[in-house]
Amino acid sequence: MVTPAELDAADPIGFARERFILPEGVIYLDGNSLGALPRATPARLAAVIEREWGGDLITSWNRHDWIGAPARVGAKIAPLIGAAADEVIVADSVSVNLFKLLAGGLALRAQQDSGRRVILSEPGSFPTDLYMAQGLAAMGGAELRLASDIPAAIDGDTAVVLLSHVHYKSAAVHDLAAITAAAHARSALVLWDLSHSVGAIPVDLGGAGADMAVGCGYKYLNGGPGAPAFAFVARRHQAAFASPLSGWMGHAAPFAFTDDYAPATGIARLLCGTPPMLSLLALEIGAELIAEIGIDRLAAKSRALSNLFIAALAGAPGLQLASPTHTRGSHLAFRHPQAHAICQALIARGIIGDFRDPDIVRFGFAPAYLRFADVAAAAAVLVELLDTGGWDRPEFHARRAVT
Amino acid sequence: MVTPAELDAADPIGFARERFILPEGVIYLDGNSLGALPRATPARLAAVIEREWGGDLITSWNRHDWIGAPARVGAKIAPLIGAAADEVIVADSVSVNLFKLLAGGLALRAQQDSGRRVILSEPGSFPTDLYMAQGLAAMGGAELRLASDIPAAIDGDTAVVLLSHVHYKSAAVHDLAAITAAAHARSALVLWDLSHSVGAIPVDLGGAGADMAVGCGYKYLNGGPGAPAFAFVARRHQAAFASPLSGWMGHAAPFAFTDDYAPATGIARLLCGTPPMLSLLALEIGAELIAEIGIDRLAAKSRALSNLFIAALAGAPGLQLASPTHTRGSHLAFRHPQAHAICQALIARGIIGDFRDPDIVRFGFAPAYLRFADVAAAAAVLVELLDTGGWDRPEFHARRAVT
Repeated sequence: MVTPAELDAADPIGFARERFILPEGVIYLDGNSLGALPRATPARLAAVIEREWGGDLITSWNRHDWIGAPARVGAKIAPLIGAAADEVIVADSVSVNLFKLLAGGLALRAQQDSGRRVILSEPGSFPTDLYMAQGLAAMGGAELRLASDIPAAIDGDTAVVLLSHVHYKSAAVHDLAAITAAAHARSALVLWDLSHSVGAIPVDLGGAGADMAVGCGYKYLNGGPGAPAFAFVARRHQAAFASPLSGWMGHAAPFAFTDDYAPATGIARLLCGTPPMLSLLALEIGAELIAEIGIDRLAAKSRALSNLFIAALAGAPGLQLASPTHTRGSHLAFRHPQAHAICQALIARGIIGDFRDPDIVRFGFAPAYLRFADVAAAAAVLVELLDTGGWDRPEFHARRAVT
Repeated sequence: MVTPAELDAADPIGFARERFILPEGVIYLDGNSLGALPRATPARLAAVIEREWGGDLITSWNRHDWIGAPARVGAKIAPLIGAAADEVIVADSVSVNLFKLLAGGLALRAQQDSGRRVILSEPGSFPTDLYMAQGLAAMGGAELRLASDIPAAIDGDTAVVLLSHVHYKSAAVHDLAAITAAAHARSALVLWDLSHSVGAIPVDLGGAGADMAVGCGYKYLNGGPGAPAFAFVARRHQAAFASPLSGWMGHAAPFAFTDDYAPATGIARLLCGTPPMLSLLALEIGAELIAEIGIDRLAAKSRALSNLFIAALAGAPGLQLASPTHTRGSHLAFRHPQAHAICQALIARGIIGDFRDPDIVRFGFAPAYLRFADVAAAAAVLVELLDTGGWDRPEFHARRAVT
């Protein structure tokens, strides 16, 4: 039997943990919600704030290429998702980018078949995906339909299929290539939400011939709280692609200050307003670091970490794995009738996972900074809590505002 | 004759300059594009990054009230614009907020009169205002019309009047109360862009009975490059107000993870995705500082600074004031056929203004950190350059990508 310490000693990306700053006495199993702080980020942000903003002020847009940052950081994310550098841009939030791409995708599809107005998604998707589609539908010209069997539900009304690649709760993975192909076979486009994929498991948008995608900067990319998101539009669609959020940063000549909008060439037309530069430049550090460690090694370690966790919990009373045993993302969900109290009891012991209504406790295994020893130790505490009922104390039942 | 040094000595807000970090050897007349760095910001952001993000990780959403930051910072901006604390929220960019409010305003108006679909604005408005309206119009259901005489152009088709309170180029000021009243008299709503007003001149949205407004966080509020923007919706409109960008952060219960969108009570429904927390918490420092200095004192000093500049330039050859001599914002525009080269020649002398196509050189007088002596010195250099033709060198004619 190989010990966790031996696994750590043999870990080819074990070096990466030192590239992060992590709190003492905490085992952080929530990197799927908010990634940890890269060690290089504080000094870089201090330089951005003090030297670039404070010292060079407005001239930093040129001198420090702030103006190029959305495309530059997008290009650094691109290889993690099988995209070309000029197919990805960083802008706004996942939610806002969903709106741009849903509306743009519908308009693109309508150029060929104006009768197609359905956005097809599945019940239980990450809420903002459904909410943004509902907001767009309420403006008229689109309809959101939900179906559990997506390939079977794609029909002649379907304009855009909207799916999370990795499910935020269960970590179930959709077959990106197969669903893209099924949609294309019925002349529909697909918009993939890669928020729980990027930086954790390999994604090959190019190989699948994918159309559009969005993803999150503050989970496995470690860009910091609320880091801006990214948007992907396949190069073949870009020239005809129109974002309804046609802000000045996506203009062909933003500093010509003309009255009429003309979209920038290529992916830059997905920009809207002035990007939040502090948050964007923090994301650059995180994305660079993940790209350097390498997605294949990260994915392999993620798999090994979560397999270790599952094995250590085998037979723990009342706990039921709610994630797939085979293909899955980098987190695990377990059902337990007292999931909330268990989550709180773990936090009190320095183990940070999260609770998802009504009965899910979720653990993320961010492979860049978690050790096998951490995962084994967390599992041991969880087994102890379940064996002893140590979670059943009044303070663990109180509900928090945010989880 | 009172000297600039005497004016500085008598300046009731002269203390405020020390609350900023400013580069040596530079006179910064572009705080209307990017505000300067508050002295408190680097340490605060270092704490946010290292202690909150790095140390407390996901628990910071509760422990450090990240979740409350958009409303909290909005409430700090509110008194600067004559709004109640629960009428302002910080979110996204000016551009994105324009889209929310234009679409929401049109829908609100359509509840009473579905025939109204015109957004009325003026030619030469700040581009993103027009571009966002064009993007919305291209989705159907809205039409953008431009007119130079806005009060005369408001008619039975007008749903929303969209105007900058202070013009980004000329600093001309619209009469916010009078135009709001004229619009209301014809049953139209008004959306005010306060980007060049907030923190520089008094705004009284409440006194005017204004409907909606947006504004910029990175100009006179000193929130840092690309700081998030704010949105105002009058309390009386909030319950019926629907943002088409209905993201999860604007949901009544974001962490219930339900499939159906239900807007939060009040202004929080204007939130969309997860806010860029580093940029948002930097804005909090800047907004607090401006509120503490006080908008009336800031406006009075701004006026005195720009009057001094105008007086010092009287008779400078070839330069023509392109800003109003009476009511105006906190910057000045001058026309000169060689405005670009003049702007570059000033930068080479450490005086940072900006150029706006085709023939405008623009100077901002951020009253929180500029001294009378700075403004007098900048004017003296400009007079010298104009008297001697010192701007007419090849390196000053080369165009930069961004100004």
